[in-house]
Amino acid sequence: MSRIVYVNGEYLPEGDAKVSIFDRGFLFADGVYEVTSVLDSKLIDFDGHAVRLERSLNELGMNHPIPKDDLLEVHRELMRRNDLTEGMIYLQITRGADADRDFVYPSEDTPNTIVLFTQAKNLKDSPMVAKGMKVISIEDQRWGRRDIKTVQLLYPSMGKMMAKAANADDAWMVEDGAITEGTSNNAYIVKGNRIITRHLGNEILHGITRAAVLRFAKSAQMEVEERAFTLDEAKAADEAFITSASTFVMPVVEMDGQPIGTGKPGSVALRLREIYLDESLKAAV
Amino acid sequence: MSRIVYVNGEYLPEGDAKVSIFDRGFLFADGVYEVTSVLDSKLIDFDGHAVRLERSLNELGMNHPIPKDDLLEVHRELMRRNDLTEGMIYLQITRGADADRDFVYPSEDTPNTIVLFTQAKNLKDSPMVAKGMKVISIEDQRWGRRDIKTVQLLYPSMGKMMAKAANADDAWMVEDGAITEGTSNNAYIVKGNRIITRHLGNEILHGITRAAVLRFAKSAQMEVEERAFTLDEAKAADEAFITSASTFVMPVVEMDGQPIGTGKPGSVALRLREIYLDESLKAAV
Repeated sequence: MSRIVYVNGEYLPEGDAKVSIFDRGFLFADGVYEVTSVLDSKLIDFDGHAVRLERSLNELGMNHPIPKDDLLEVHRELMRRNDLTEGMIYLQITRGADADRDFVYPSEDTPNTIVLFTQAKNLKDSPMVAKGMKVISIEDQRWGRRDIKTVQLLYPSMGKMMAKAANADDAWMVEDGAITEGTSNNAYIVKGNRIITRHLGNEILHGITRAAVLRFAKSAQMEVEERAFTLDEAKAADEAFITSASTFVMPVVEMDGQPIGTGKPGSVALRLREIYLDESLKAAV
Repeated sequence: MSRIVYVNGEYLPEGDAKVSIFDRGFLFADGVYEVTSVLDSKLIDFDGHAVRLERSLNELGMNHPIPKDDLLEVHRELMRRNDLTEGMIYLQITRGADADRDFVYPSEDTPNTIVLFTQAKNLKDSPMVAKGMKVISIEDQRWGRRDIKTVQLLYPSMGKMMAKAANADDAWMVEDGAITEGTSNNAYIVKGNRIITRHLGNEILHGITRAAVLRFAKSAQMEVEERAFTLDEAKAADEAFITSASTFVMPVVEMDGQPIGTGKPGSVALRLREIYLDESLKAAV
């Protein structure tokens, strides 16, 4: 079945959904994005994603081309038109198509490009929850502003391919000896019942799911430490996991071919996943 | 006048030239590019650009979707259709449009996206040659593989805007105290008649014009030193300049508001520009 997607105010069959070759998203990776999960036909943490989108646009000096309420309505209309009950909605905003290619930004009245599309997927009952993920460590080669959610995703993409080539599911990136994050998720270890995850900064994405999970963990009296941790600490951890909008909380059971802890999904990760799903569904819109 | 551009085998008016929103160039910056200059209706160093394109594709594990001879013919056809006698031809190849968004690369039989378009511009008689460029220094925040000519150009774009805000023409990027390169060009200083420019590595683009200019400089018995140089060295240099496919050799006369040398275009830069233009035109195709 062909999806109906949204491009600059129009709902179109996906085969007709196109952007100009002069779009700065295509020529300069001059665009930002968000991915919001859908469970039981509802949006998970829509507000969190809308706030982060606004921050990304601000950091790049881009216009805010669509009010939050209208954006919510586009999300809902796409869910309706595509009968989406579980999966993701992808949103991308670029600085738009200039009359010609130029590193200098186009004038501020250049219309932004706004693209949204749905992706149906079983998120809640992912078979990965019971198995746990295998990850490898790779050097973090990305640019310096990973806190801005830009479409400069070539290296994360290369990282996923390196993981695949090593029969793993994902890669954790290492910079100056410390883990930054996964290719499209935040990274956590658990040691002596402490949950350790990298502190916020320009080095990692400020995960919406990360913020919620840490809040829930603290509410549940779990100890949380936000600091850089090393690859060796990860290998010696009791358990490990990731968070992201589409995986929620997912156990990590292997690093570079060696089991982490028991080599099975850890109890902290599984408990946090349960809490996250319960609480997020209650607040879903 | 509307340009005729090339998209995946078709010559189209620029207003109709579009790519799928699922193109990996748009979603992941998963694409590479080249810019070849046109002088007197001929292509400057086409072979050099074709070889570097091949290298970029190889480094990213992408297919080679168009043989060099066909690519040359597309360049020539675009020159004819657009009456281009002086300017640039931009070429971009992406990993193509996948059926859905996924960090994992699509199957190898996914057709690449190939886009080319012309840009008319007075390159030879640029007013900048007599004035010289003003540059500022900024931190190099780009990813680690700048030797691959990818479309991840957001930071160079931000750099040009920082330069503009400082009433300068471009920015030179600094990493660990040393200059890497300009936002879209290689950087050089001259001290005691020695031409100093950063050695090749993952930290800079392997400029086609850089290679030619260094070759011509050596032929002309000029001393060339390929090594990292610092911002302080640049400020204390006798002269400075950049090279790129569209600026050839362009004098730099100011760094961070201070004059370099006499604050006027330097004799080494002007001589190299002359040699480069003479020799390149002789070899143009």
